[in-house]
Amino acid sequence: MQLLEERILKDGKVYSGNVLKVSGFLNQLIDEELLFEVGKEISVRFCEQEVTKILTVEASGIAIACAAAHYMHVPVLFAKKSKTSNLADDCYTADVVSFTHNNTATIVVEKSFLSSDDKILIVDDFIARGAAIKGLRSIIDQAGATLVGCAIAIEKGFQGGGDALRAEGIKVESLAIVDSMTDDSLTFRH
Amino acid sequence: MQLLEERILKDGKVYSGNVLKVSGFLNQLIDEELLFEVGKEISVRFCEQEVTKILTVEASGIAIACAAAHYMHVPVLFAKKSKTSNLADDCYTADVVSFTHNNTATIVVEKSFLSSDDKILIVDDFIARGAAIKGLRSIIDQAGATLVGCAIAIEKGFQGGGDALRAEGIKVESLAIVDSMTDDSLTFRH
Repeated sequence: MQLLEERILKDGKVYSGNVLKVSGFLNQLIDEELLFEVGKEISVRFCEQEVTKILTVEASGIAIACAAAHYMHVPVLFAKKSKTSNLADDCYTADVVSFTHNNTATIVVEKSFLSSDDKILIVDDFIARGAAIKGLRSIIDQAGATLVGCAIAIEKGFQGGGDALRAEGIKVESLAIVDSMTDDSLTFRH
Repeated sequence: MQLLEERILKDGKVYSGNVLKVSGFLNQLIDEELLFEVGKEISVRFCEQEVTKILTVEASGIAIACAAAHYMHVPVLFAKKSKTSNLADDCYTADVVSFTHNNTATIVVEKSFLSSDDKILIVDDFIARGAAIKGLRSIIDQAGATLVGCAIAIEKGFQGGGDALRAEGIKVESLAIVDSMTDDSLTFRH
């Protein structure tokens, strides 16, 4: 998506440890116009999948999920992050390892919010190694729901998470795929 | 806002400790149509305030803030919650006491995301005693920005936070004000 790539080149910041910071326009201070263009593009790419629900994880996935939901006319569900895995019986949980933050979080969704009839589109701001999406897939599996695909704003292509999902036959649409990045250059996959 | 009040009566759940749970349609599983009607209503109520930025706090405020931003054509900024108050010099921080969760969180905004020219609308899903808004106001004050008002989906009128802000002359618009609630009845202020 050209608009997003241009904005990453203009305002994205690269830090050591393969960190690409887009918090000035996408995931903390959020440019409303860009956000809803991203949402619209996601809706175009998944218009044939009969999505019944969008699933994301707090916090930075929520904005993009809501923007996509606006054009797809489906509900948004977000998994909460919890410090404890000792939760009530009425919740699905999964562990997510964060390589960026070097910790493990438990993500939680109430069972009543997912049904086996649901066709789920996972939406998130980033995919790197795919740890968050692995956790969300576990929750979808526990509910007996169907994963119809993943829509990601920015994929760090060089970390392999997106391609591993594609190799499994999952439809993964990333609006910008960064194939390499250094302090002074970013290369997108086309 | 009639649509929201009707939905609270239909799907809201009251728990002990003055907890009103709306996570089935507003702040975890989110009804897209309701969300954007709430956003549109907020934009109508603040159309004369020349808002330059919407400020909220993660996670459940983000969806409503984005929906309002969509109709107001302004950026959304959300404060992050942090476990530590030992943060970099380039951040504004404030402590927020949660009576619901019986803890204190530090909320954080990067200084570069706010300017003294900003006219800020605070948006959140709930106001009870107003602790989160107090923290957000502190951050606005630290930045030398101007608070033009607060837009809240649901105000727990009986906990006084909204009325205390109004008594200070702050424009507070809550789309549903619950003046009393018990297990089997909810009364709205009109």
